Amino acid sequence: MRNILIIGAGRSATYLIDYLLEKSAPENLHITIGDLSAELAARKTNGHPNARAIAFDIFNEQQRHDEISRADIVISMLPAHLHFEVAKDCITYKKHMVTASYISPAMADLDTQVKEAGLVFMNECGLDPGIDHMSAMKVIDDIRDKGGKVLLFESFCGGLVAPESDNNLWNYKFTWNPRNVVLAGQGGAAKFIQEGTYKYIPYNKLFRRTEFMEVEGYGRFEGYANRDSLKYRSVYGLDNALTLYRGTLRRVGYSKSWNMFVTLGMTDDSYTMENSENMSYRDFTNSFLPYHPTDSVELKLRHILKIDQDDIQWDKLQELDLFNPNKIVGLHNATPAQILEKILGDKWTLDQEDKDMIVMYHKFGYELNGKKEQIDSTMVCIGENQTYTAMAKTVGLPVAIAALQILNGKITTPGVQLPITREVYTPILEELETYGIIFNEKHMPYMGYNPQNVAS
Amino acid sequence: MRNILIIGAGRSATYLIDYLLEKSAPENLHITIGDLSAELAARKTNGHPNARAIAFDIFNEQQRHDEISRADIVISMLPAHLHFEVAKDCITYKKHMVTASYISPAMADLDTQVKEAGLVFMNECGLDPGIDHMSAMKVIDDIRDKGGKVLLFESFCGGLVAPESDNNLWNYKFTWNPRNVVLAGQGGAAKFIQEGTYKYIPYNKLFRRTEFMEVEGYGRFEGYANRDSLKYRSVYGLDNALTLYRGTLRRVGYSKSWNMFVTLGMTDDSYTMENSENMSYRDFTNSFLPYHPTDSVELKLRHILKIDQDDIQWDKLQELDLFNPNKIVGLHNATPAQILEKILGDKWTLDQEDKDMIVMYHKFGYELNGKKEQIDSTMVCIGENQTYTAMAKTVGLPVAIAALQILNGKITTPGVQLPITREVYTPILEELETYGIIFNEKHMPYMGYNPQNVAS
Repeated sequence: MRNILIIGAGRSATYLIDYLLEKSAPENLHITIGDLSAELAARKTNGHPNARAIAFDIFNEQQRHDEISRADIVISMLPAHLHFEVAKDCITYKKHMVTASYISPAMADLDTQVKEAGLVFMNECGLDPGIDHMSAMKVIDDIRDKGGKVLLFESFCGGLVAPESDNNLWNYKFTWNPRNVVLAGQGGAAKFIQEGTYKYIPYNKLFRRTEFMEVEGYGRFEGYANRDSLKYRSVYGLDNALTLYRGTLRRVGYSKSWNMFVTLGMTDDSYTMENSENMSYRDFTNSFLPYHPTDSVELKLRHILKIDQDDIQWDKLQELDLFNPNKIVGLHNATPAQILEKILGDKWTLDQEDKDMIVMYHKFGYELNGKKEQIDSTMVCIGENQTYTAMAKTVGLPVAIAALQILNGKITTPGVQLPITREVYTPILEELETYGIIFNEKHMPYMGYNPQNVAS
Repeated sequence: MRNILIIGAGRSATYLIDYLLEKSAPENLHITIGDLSAELAARKTNGHPNARAIAFDIFNEQQRHDEISRADIVISMLPAHLHFEVAKDCITYKKHMVTASYISPAMADLDTQVKEAGLVFMNECGLDPGIDHMSAMKVIDDIRDKGGKVLLFESFCGGLVAPESDNNLWNYKFTWNPRNVVLAGQGGAAKFIQEGTYKYIPYNKLFRRTEFMEVEGYGRFEGYANRDSLKYRSVYGLDNALTLYRGTLRRVGYSKSWNMFVTLGMTDDSYTMENSENMSYRDFTNSFLPYHPTDSVELKLRHILKIDQDDIQWDKLQELDLFNPNKIVGLHNATPAQILEKILGDKWTLDQEDKDMIVMYHKFGYELNGKKEQIDSTMVCIGENQTYTAMAKTVGLPVAIAALQILNGKITTPGVQLPITREVYTPILEELETYGIIFNEKHMPYMGYNPQNVAS
């Protein structure tokens, strides 16, 4: 029997646990699922004979030591800032470790120790980061093997609502952490590089400078730039690429509408509003508009945002009940962002039968034998319901597959890793295909931003 | 002989030093002027027999103790964060102290000790903060004495270029710290209260929601809101006022144009730009615009900011040479804000013969005997040249007068103070009038924001 310890049984762990339980008989696995809530852990084991559910407190040192020392590999699905305690124990007891989170500087500092212990600490192994790394590096490595040179890499990902559950004017519902959606793009300009020129987009223009793209069978999407598109430039070996752009996908029209909140100041998380508890949704909206004794909140907003009488933007605001004088915010000492999140939550929360959808879109421009070419690679994954979501599937399965590969000695390179080498991504991507997570690669003429190579 | 120690002989100390030297014979004063630069200190004493210029290092503990122990009162014109060291020594040696800076939390914490020692630490005694407190409290106290109730208080101040030196399209030059001008309004929404309703303006709208006001003989100005208009609400006793608004004055049209920089992202100070040292002004501008192989930087900017062919905004940008491919930024690892400051400095730096202008505008709305009334109080001060500036005059004179009043036992209330009581502001404002710093008070019908008292 090989022991796997999974810490954290939240919504991203559903597929992860199911996968490992399914493999437990043929692979001779025993799975311990620890969560602050023993009840949640028990529910996820579903009475499986090879599983054991426990109440687990990451800050209980004795328990942490006991459980980690018993395991052969540890999967941490905790919030990112809690991985470090687990990681230190994994080094002490010489256990491999897998997470779906970004490598923190503290985690990166463990690299030498992890290597010396001959362990694999695989991070960024969920969806984004995770599947994005793997699917991108597969194409990039293929291009390089043929002797091609990558000129352009753009990568977009979005967690959206599936077409069959898409029934609001924003074509959007919260499928993950709503707070991150409200705060998206804050904290600095978006930086990227296009045809060798560095570009910077301030927050107030971020949602107005989108790119469109089409996914066969699913229609059009738009992407707005992530904060730092250059983060993986060196990691991917793309220091000489002329264009690097990473972004977030939404349905067309979302960003333009979202920009209304940005312009009004409703996404600000830096201060709390007076009397937020008792204010109505209408009061909230009026706080961002000039005072007038008689002009309506509606007209003041139309004027400040220049919304014409017949503009769909108006209907989108109406749909959210932003002018309702009877709905009360009910949050004490709340920031505008917290209040907006609450207002959006009224309308954008998925129903139990709603399905979510993950869309990923990569563009690779390259030069091969003197000719410029392009590959667009897309993946769409649709969830089953609110327990078996596309998000849980695309985050949990690669983590689970990676854990088993490490356990079986298929992934062996020691150190604090992310899944960008063939050894790692090939078996994972292949197995993901059997679960319907499939990238559709299309060769096409190179588009880039300067296909004629005009001097600027 | 009474000894006065002035620490810091920079540009705001010119009038301050001249005033005290002029009073030195009749008032029996000996003035020590300490500055990091002994040469600067010597220049400001101008060989006056009652003055002594010394090289003074605030971090030289021995020297600080020696000089402070010899003085009867200490005037600190240091940057605000350096006052605290001086203040502690002033308590030790039982010396009064005067500054033109905001009371820091650390300074406020000294209040009990200062009171126990029977000392006066007068702060916020320059222009803004300083003259604004004094001139406002004079009118507010007068209204209250008559039995009136203050409903509205708005206060604006601006450091501008005098009409006779106003020769650019922006009607603006740097008269004080350019960095503060570039960063104005950043770091959080502007908050104020109008007719009992709290209002918040995000940075991206701050320069688009200005108020106009007219100053007799000087034409029209506009004001944009300061970060926190409620800062002095309790200090002024205005907790029940319905409208509180503080702002910064500019010539009409400045704010709308400044907003172009905000929208483009050029005022951002949170990140450094790639290759800032070698980029041209044109490259800088282009960094904030979408890539295109052939479209000009000019057209891209016109498009993104929606600037028509015949719009004066365009000429304002042209005047700053923002499209010049030959002017090089020349700043290593600079933020957009630092680069913008440099570009503006090329055009907005005052010539030696240029004159600056200070404008202050207060509005007081109040109810007296069941009737609503309003007083508008304005002050304009124009400098002589680049040594004798209106800024140096309005900052330095109230500090100097306060110091002498304290020394002469006219201002006696002990503690960490700001100039808001009659004892303090009456003699200072009276003496300022003899130097031409005069408030012009005008009674007028109450305007407010809801003069008809319509229910909103």
